[in-house]
Amino acid sequence: MSFDRMWAELAPVGRAADGGYHRYTWAGADTDARAWFTGEAAARGLDVRTDRNGNLWAWWGGPGPGAVATGSHLDSVPDGGAFDGPLGVVSALAAVDELRARGVRPARPLVLAVFVEEEGGRFGVPCLGSRLTAGEISPERARGLADADGVTWAEAMAAAGHDPDLIGPDPDTLASLDVFVELHVEQGRALEDTVHPVGVASAIWPHGRWRMDFTGRADHAGTTRLADRNDPMLPFAHAVLAARAQAEEHGARATVARSVIVPNGTNAIPSLVSAWLDARADSEDTLTAVVEGVRARAEAAAREHGVGVAMTAESRTPLVSFAHGLRDRLAAVVGTRAPDPRVPVLPTGAGHDAGVLAAHVPTAMLYVRNPTGVSHSPKEWARPDDCHAGVLALADVLQDLLARPVGEVAP
Amino acid sequence: MSFDRMWAELAPVGRAADGGYHRYTWAGADTDARAWFTGEAAARGLDVRTDRNGNLWAWWGGPGPGAVATGSHLDSVPDGGAFDGPLGVVSALAAVDELRARGVRPARPLVLAVFVEEEGGRFGVPCLGSRLTAGEISPERARGLADADGVTWAEAMAAAGHDPDLIGPDPDTLASLDVFVELHVEQGRALEDTVHPVGVASAIWPHGRWRMDFTGRADHAGTTRLADRNDPMLPFAHAVLAARAQAEEHGARATVARSVIVPNGTNAIPSLVSAWLDARADSEDTLTAVVEGVRARAEAAAREHGVGVAMTAESRTPLVSFAHGLRDRLAAVVGTRAPDPRVPVLPTGAGHDAGVLAAHVPTAMLYVRNPTGVSHSPKEWARPDDCHAGVLALADVLQDLLARPVGEVAP
Repeated sequence: MSFDRMWAELAPVGRAADGGYHRYTWAGADTDARAWFTGEAAARGLDVRTDRNGNLWAWWGGPGPGAVATGSHLDSVPDGGAFDGPLGVVSALAAVDELRARGVRPARPLVLAVFVEEEGGRFGVPCLGSRLTAGEISPERARGLADADGVTWAEAMAAAGHDPDLIGPDPDTLASLDVFVELHVEQGRALEDTVHPVGVASAIWPHGRWRMDFTGRADHAGTTRLADRNDPMLPFAHAVLAARAQAEEHGARATVARSVIVPNGTNAIPSLVSAWLDARADSEDTLTAVVEGVRARAEAAAREHGVGVAMTAESRTPLVSFAHGLRDRLAAVVGTRAPDPRVPVLPTGAGHDAGVLAAHVPTAMLYVRNPTGVSHSPKEWARPDDCHAGVLALADVLQDLLARPVGEVAP
Repeated sequence: MSFDRMWAELAPVGRAADGGYHRYTWAGADTDARAWFTGEAAARGLDVRTDRNGNLWAWWGGPGPGAVATGSHLDSVPDGGAFDGPLGVVSALAAVDELRARGVRPARPLVLAVFVEEEGGRFGVPCLGSRLTAGEISPERARGLADADGVTWAEAMAAAGHDPDLIGPDPDTLASLDVFVELHVEQGRALEDTVHPVGVASAIWPHGRWRMDFTGRADHAGTTRLADRNDPMLPFAHAVLAARAQAEEHGARATVARSVIVPNGTNAIPSLVSAWLDARADSEDTLTAVVEGVRARAEAAAREHGVGVAMTAESRTPLVSFAHGLRDRLAAVVGTRAPDPRVPVLPTGAGHDAGVLAAHVPTAMLYVRNPTGVSHSPKEWARPDDCHAGVLALADVLQDLLARPVGEVAP
């Protein structure tokens, strides 16, 4: 299968000695990976275009209306894994090969998409390429986003040879898409408990990020009596534990994985601890209950220790429920080749370009089994056989959709 | 009183716009402060010498045996206060003025000391100047200590015009000292609850620093089921709270004020959380009980979450009990001028050069009242009247000691 050759070729691009990936938009390895995709697409006779926002579109027939679209992204989080993003891109190319081997001659266009800055690994806003295209972030804000070195999106994009003055909503491209299917490595291990190498997405949970600032008083840790302290580490620690407890109570996910301590000295009671809560749940109400539960515990502990606390939402993304008709069709098609026709239909807590597009185009996702569930890590993995099953499932789904009338797969 | 003029002159040296001090050994503001001290001492006809380790000694009579010594340090912690260190140095100079105004003519030498790198603010090891002189750290290790930019002690010292090959134990200087008294701003607020502007030190609590490494597994915070996580933030949070609980239970101090989270991303369950425990108690056994209590809680929580934990002592300093005879003599002398003759005799949790010298020379400390107890912070403060009372108490003590036979004030 052409998948294996392509996977082996792409694997070293942006991979550090420890196995972690570093592919950041508009620079070195990400540029190399995009060039690799462009070369593969061109070799297949696909018409590759870069849209105004930097996303790549490789057309088999077209560009034109009524297109069946598939794809994912090539950028990574810092020290990320090989599969998150690239699996969907390489599988899309391999699915084209599979369709051609089957003699499929599409009656309407098939287009392969590579979205830019999906991880927000360089400029901080995830799904930036699809958000720009969908008009969900203003061009002005996007141009001003800066990386850790202070280089803006506009500067980096211009240095890469693209005109940042042209970025923004792209309704024509969106209007040309009849349906979008993203294949992605699973980022949990729900499929591992089943016989299924491939599953179908039901929804992306509502999720968001909240910043908590605990304001205490700088003091000497060796000399300040306990009663005289206003130590912000203590309510911070309570908030970390409260996130876990709330997640358990509500069947949700809530994590504190990032903090900044000022001044972060061994014998210096901090003046400030900032921390970020990442929370996700299967409904808006549950998400709100989780966040408010953490807030209540943080505020109570802060009061107890004479510490100030401010909690603000940095982002909140509502529930994305993928088009039901399309979802059920995918499950049926995938089920014809699966060891059991009852293909798992799973929600996820992770955001994707598919989640952004879902508001504009009938959209679905396929997941490939991840035996450890590990993602965003050098240890992220999927079995080769499961990747091959993913390519066949994607080819089956694309073949089925290409053969159906435009506009039939409504939500 | 000359104290006020000197205090006003020294105050701007190394002070940032927000009031915090930045005086780091062998560089800018610390060098300026040392030059200021040398000028003040020279203006009084004192013979200023820099010893092999970079400590300054300003002799009134001598250098020679049987000296009564006083002094402190001029360097600061990052973003430190004005008083920790400089109060003892400026008060020593003002005490010389006071003794001269009284017509005191010492029968033996009086020497004013300024110790280098007391805070460890640049090279990480506190009391480095006094430790080198006392032979409590090897010259090889000291030369190799590096600051945050990788500049070593040897390189920085050489750049400042001193020969790093000469550093090491200085038994001759130690042997010339008959007694050492350090005046210091109080770093708690025990005196604030009394009528006393000045107190006497009884002991420096045994104290130390322990590093805790919690090793988990990197995972996606949005997609990894709670049951599949090995999140090191959770036992870390338990350890933070356990430090406080152990300190309360044992009447001690225990603080987690510093941590490093890897990778410290909002949606990335960490692979590693490192944290530092600072603990102090009135006895070795109590200190051990506190540390073992934190260890037990950290290990239990780590087991519960499938996280590894390693706890290692980075430093442990035993109890320093100041010479009892000298301590009682100081209390009696200070009591003659105090509003109540029963002068408080207080332990402290903080390390000092006096604590290092105490193993080699009869040593004592005076504390000047700190109304908030805040230290190692721009808000560190003492009332001017209390500072003046400190100068008079130090002058009284020095006058008393200078008039007594050499060798009389044994522990």
